[in-house]
Amino acid sequence: MKRKFLLLSFFVFYLSFSSYCQSVNWREIYPGVWKGVVGKPDVYNLLNAADVQPSSALQKLQKATFPLNNSSIVVEVKNGKTYLRFPLERNEQLYGFGLNFQTVHQRGRIMQLHVDHYGKSDNGRTHAPTPFYISSLGYGVFVNSAKYIDVYAGSSVRKDSKNPPEVQDRNTDDTWSAHPYSDAVEMLVPAEGIEMYVFAGPKPVNVIERFNLLGGGGCLPPRWGLGFTQRVNRLYTDAQVKAEAKAFSDKGFPLDFIGLEPGWQSKSYPCTFEWDKTRFPDPEKFVKEMDEVGVKINLWTNPYVSPDAEIYSKIKPFTGSHTVWNGIVPDLSMPEARKILFDQFEKEHVKIGVSGYKIDEVDGFDSYVWPDVATFPSGHTAEQMRQTYGLLVQKYSYEMFRKNNRRTYSLVRGSNAGGSSFPYVIYNDNYSHEDFITALINSGYAGVLWTPEVRASKTSEEWLRRFQTVCFSPMAMINAWASSTQPWTFPEVAEQVKEVAQLRMRMMPYWYSTFAKYHYEGTPPFRGMSLEEGFGSDLTKEKTTANLEENPYEEATSKEVKDQYMAGEYLLVAPMFTGQTSRKVILPKGKWYDFYNGNFVGDGQVITITPGLAKIPVFVKEGGIIPMMPPLLHAPKAGEKVDLEIRVYGKKPAVSRLYDDDGETFAYEKDQYSWRDLIVEEKNGVLKGHISEPESGKPNSIGRIKWHFITKSIK
Amino acid sequence: MKRKFLLLSFFVFYLSFSSYCQSVNWREIYPGVWKGVVGKPDVYNLLNAADVQPSSALQKLQKATFPLNNSSIVVEVKNGKTYLRFPLERNEQLYGFGLNFQTVHQRGRIMQLHVDHYGKSDNGRTHAPTPFYISSLGYGVFVNSAKYIDVYAGSSVRKDSKNPPEVQDRNTDDTWSAHPYSDAVEMLVPAEGIEMYVFAGPKPVNVIERFNLLGGGGCLPPRWGLGFTQRVNRLYTDAQVKAEAKAFSDKGFPLDFIGLEPGWQSKSYPCTFEWDKTRFPDPEKFVKEMDEVGVKINLWTNPYVSPDAEIYSKIKPFTGSHTVWNGIVPDLSMPEARKILFDQFEKEHVKIGVSGYKIDEVDGFDSYVWPDVATFPSGHTAEQMRQTYGLLVQKYSYEMFRKNNRRTYSLVRGSNAGGSSFPYVIYNDNYSHEDFITALINSGYAGVLWTPEVRASKTSEEWLRRFQTVCFSPMAMINAWASSTQPWTFPEVAEQVKEVAQLRMRMMPYWYSTFAKYHYEGTPPFRGMSLEEGFGSDLTKEKTTANLEENPYEEATSKEVKDQYMAGEYLLVAPMFTGQTSRKVILPKGKWYDFYNGNFVGDGQVITITPGLAKIPVFVKEGGIIPMMPPLLHAPKAGEKVDLEIRVYGKKPAVSRLYDDDGETFAYEKDQYSWRDLIVEEKNGVLKGHISEPESGKPNSIGRIKWHFITKSIK
Repeated sequence: MKRKFLLLSFFVFYLSFSSYCQSVNWREIYPGVWKGVVGKPDVYNLLNAADVQPSSALQKLQKATFPLNNSSIVVEVKNGKTYLRFPLERNEQLYGFGLNFQTVHQRGRIMQLHVDHYGKSDNGRTHAPTPFYISSLGYGVFVNSAKYIDVYAGSSVRKDSKNPPEVQDRNTDDTWSAHPYSDAVEMLVPAEGIEMYVFAGPKPVNVIERFNLLGGGGCLPPRWGLGFTQRVNRLYTDAQVKAEAKAFSDKGFPLDFIGLEPGWQSKSYPCTFEWDKTRFPDPEKFVKEMDEVGVKINLWTNPYVSPDAEIYSKIKPFTGSHTVWNGIVPDLSMPEARKILFDQFEKEHVKIGVSGYKIDEVDGFDSYVWPDVATFPSGHTAEQMRQTYGLLVQKYSYEMFRKNNRRTYSLVRGSNAGGSSFPYVIYNDNYSHEDFITALINSGYAGVLWTPEVRASKTSEEWLRRFQTVCFSPMAMINAWASSTQPWTFPEVAEQVKEVAQLRMRMMPYWYSTFAKYHYEGTPPFRGMSLEEGFGSDLTKEKTTANLEENPYEEATSKEVKDQYMAGEYLLVAPMFTGQTSRKVILPKGKWYDFYNGNFVGDGQVITITPGLAKIPVFVKEGGIIPMMPPLLHAPKAGEKVDLEIRVYGKKPAVSRLYDDDGETFAYEKDQYSWRDLIVEEKNGVLKGHISEPESGKPNSIGRIKWHFITKSIK
Repeated sequence: MKRKFLLLSFFVFYLSFSSYCQSVNWREIYPGVWKGVVGKPDVYNLLNAADVQPSSALQKLQKATFPLNNSSIVVEVKNGKTYLRFPLERNEQLYGFGLNFQTVHQRGRIMQLHVDHYGKSDNGRTHAPTPFYISSLGYGVFVNSAKYIDVYAGSSVRKDSKNPPEVQDRNTDDTWSAHPYSDAVEMLVPAEGIEMYVFAGPKPVNVIERFNLLGGGGCLPPRWGLGFTQRVNRLYTDAQVKAEAKAFSDKGFPLDFIGLEPGWQSKSYPCTFEWDKTRFPDPEKFVKEMDEVGVKINLWTNPYVSPDAEIYSKIKPFTGSHTVWNGIVPDLSMPEARKILFDQFEKEHVKIGVSGYKIDEVDGFDSYVWPDVATFPSGHTAEQMRQTYGLLVQKYSYEMFRKNNRRTYSLVRGSNAGGSSFPYVIYNDNYSHEDFITALINSGYAGVLWTPEVRASKTSEEWLRRFQTVCFSPMAMINAWASSTQPWTFPEVAEQVKEVAQLRMRMMPYWYSTFAKYHYEGTPPFRGMSLEEGFGSDLTKEKTTANLEENPYEEATSKEVKDQYMAGEYLLVAPMFTGQTSRKVILPKGKWYDFYNGNFVGDGQVITITPGLAKIPVFVKEGGIIPMMPPLLHAPKAGEKVDLEIRVYGKKPAVSRLYDDDGETFAYEKDQYSWRDLIVEEKNGVLKGHISEPESGKPNSIGRIKWHFITKSIK
């Protein structure tokens, strides 16, 4: 007995110190959402840094079966690290792994997911390196770790693989591949255990919806966030800012909020967070006067505290060991640090009416954040702080606005999984228009928002093309902190620019319902084509050079598509880049119509278009119902009613939903919102539309409605 | 008593589980070399992977005092990682941190030292990411870890720094710096302890000498390695190789060894390591016939074992979990794996006379080596294998040649600290001529050798310029595996190309003594200008824009110099790049002479030269003694005597040393070598030279000597 006990003790002792490999015990925590824990995961992770309650909508989702073969999922903890393996099928494509700028198809790629300012390649270093991937087969995997994660997304080949690749001789085989077939996603997490989530579909977009809902649902911006925004030169005074707003107004340009750059602070890099007395002698009066002309204020900042800041000595004990640009770094994982910093922000900015922030430099580059050798008083490592700092600044700055019952729509340069409910849009210092579109596509897979902001441009063509793009993105913004540009800076295209800005405003009801769907249902507002029903070829059919050559649609959809995207439920946007006069557009199966005139353009085919300079190509799917308002200069306020033009595309009956709430406060969280049905029916061969009745006691911002059946003919 | 014991136990228990920070206890292991161990370093590290006895020359070096302020050196082990900090002074510059391609000055830079094929930036991912840095103040630090090391080489700023930077306001201060002053090198090693070395100078070059001697001294190639080498098209047959060698001979082009590319194997990618029966039906006869015409054979390979290799099943148990190009990866840290692999190499290649290898793809990119999730039967992690694989392949392939008492001069694509005694030269797939020169400079700081090989070129000018460069590098090589080029491929420059190749051969005695100095004294043969006495400005003098403008020499030497280097003791090489007809050359203090005609060219100044296409600019310092031999087509064999022309530059007495041994075997390790003194004295206003007597019983390869006092006048 004693011997058996000793043997058992030894065995247990041995087990606890050796590596172990186990089948994961998945627990279904919501319909279609499973959680698995192996080993001893880090206590601190992405979800608890974001600290958001999952959306109650998760409970109401469709039931599903576990979408992977669990016996092929292998998790091993050894030598202080966790080794993960998830199986892949042939012809399965992967999406996600964060805000990539040059690739959409992720299968075969190698990355280390690491918060940073994006560099020049999709190596995992990016503003939101979300450890979440979506399979074309309709499932997703999320690894909830705040460490740097090495990812081999179907690139690594095990010698005992049950799906070994074909061995080829490079000497003489022209078809030799430098990338032999890999049947698994493998990951390495430097921790002694891991917490993971698997999401069911059935469709890939449903996977993302579940993921976003786990993070509390997508964000719901205020209406004014979806209008137009300008950022001014960094050293503007209050008078200059007011003059800028007046110029917009005089020229009939929409403007909802203006962004002030570093010079609003008495000092920056590092920051005091206090208004400069010469440039802004009376900030409260300034913010109020701006609000009276319908323009809200957004403030640039980074988190690095200047020795000259009022809060410096108070916050110093709760900051990291290293400085960034001579500023100390608040350990925002500590309540004490958050209180000192955000009490100050609330007092100086939010309480006087400031509407939001642009939170800079919480990502990288490496010399622009704390080094990995830094330590923090919370005990969290520099690596953990790097991976979560964006989440923390969003979470706790957002809290200020929630406390004051005023929504915000802000900007941030770093985020991660768990942050989809934070109303912050990512931006960066790069400027490739093509890369910006790819990022917009990937934002949908990553659970974040991205804006392809407009800055200085070399030509009027470039200016207009970028402007057109940004008006079909989460935040329509010119960022002129360095260049002092305005929408009319290029007179040759000033009229077209104004038209697009007005179109942005007119489409506000559509954008607003789109974001409501993001919030309540988790559907990403801006998405890659792979998430669109009807896009893509039959994955079960083998692709040969012959059949690809014969079928341009098959051929086009077999490659990654980086230059067109879905915006909201119905719109396909195919931006034009500088120098292009015509381009190809891949239309998914089903009928598609020109947004501007309702004409039928194609169905499951590749078309070539020559849109002219004044238009950004936009197409609407069959049954598209687009609610639009007049081209106001500012978003409607709470309680204000607007008339709607409701456009219907195609010639068939259709249904859609229009979201409504006060557009400014958090009353919607107490049920003060409604979804109105927009119904198009055919009566005696004629289409007619009507809207469901408003719910009594709920906000109703809808004035008169005019139905516009824009498609005259389907030929 | 019991309570005190409990208290003490608790305290000890607590200590062993908490982080701790200690002053390092440095132990002087050789004069001027200190070793420090903190915590529990990994058992496996770079030095024991290389497994080379330090050179006995270390014992004879000048004594020195510990060159740093030890109380400013901080090492802490916490959370399973080791945090290192070494102090920096203002105006102190750093060199090293591996084989960088775009920077020479390392202060301020951030890297993760990680073996990889070099990408596009000096981010630490390179073929030999040596964790060794040299200070301009004359000391060096080496961190002996086989992990990926994060380096902040004077970029990170601690808030408690005793040398805080000046805080500036970016809003209004034009002199605001994005990189505030940092007073330390900080590093992060993912291990629970570390073994480190500090080297004294007094000069920076002495630091490197100590480091190289710790690794067994630099390598000593055979004479034939310093001649000329060509690599042939990958699918050449034995007949084609023979014809190639004959063409060289017919055209009077030197050729010491020919490299065969993957097609010599029956299969490659993955490899069988066996001769292809159609292309090489009788390898032994082939190698012998080539040797008879004076041309040795070098074989390309990578380590990835094909399922069709004879050794496959035998070696499989001793390979990693993952395949690379379908080949299994021998765990070369295991004697079993080494025996199987290298017994095969010895049998098939070395025993029949093959002279060396080109060991490819032991570095990266990430998809071209095993992933970090791979495991190895030795228990070493994928990361540890990555950091040491280059050392292991060199060490154990070199063993074969040592066993057979035949020196080798080979190539490899990965190495690390501890490998300086291995006679392998690094090369890669990039092709920027400028980057190649920077790498050549950095090879001297990193303890490795690098060749700026010539491949296909777009123009005859480019071809010649690259050819000129490579003949002033460790290995004069054309690598024509893809392009089938030969030295005469561009007829317009064929004559100039031949002249440079002949110059390479003529200079063989100089190169050979240079490498002997590398071996016996650790002096890097190819070095950056900062290591040259007389280079650089007075670091104690403050640099202002005014005094820099006034003094071009000060100005030029205050920046990093990437386009000229020292070759051997006396030569300054300033290569021309395609498109340049003239260039500036920075001449250190002291008199410098034109290599080709002995004319005085300058002293401590910047000169502008227009050398013409046919010459690569080379300058010789005062007292330069350059021994040269006739332009043989092949290196002299063991026992063969060659006549020498000994050139003397300048007009002053001088001394130098000429190394001699059999040039082919390891007899020098048994004392079968000598250093002969070359003495230039002035007698009656005339310079005369003589050589010391040969040592009896030692190899004597010197025939007749002609002294050539090439400098006619010093005006």
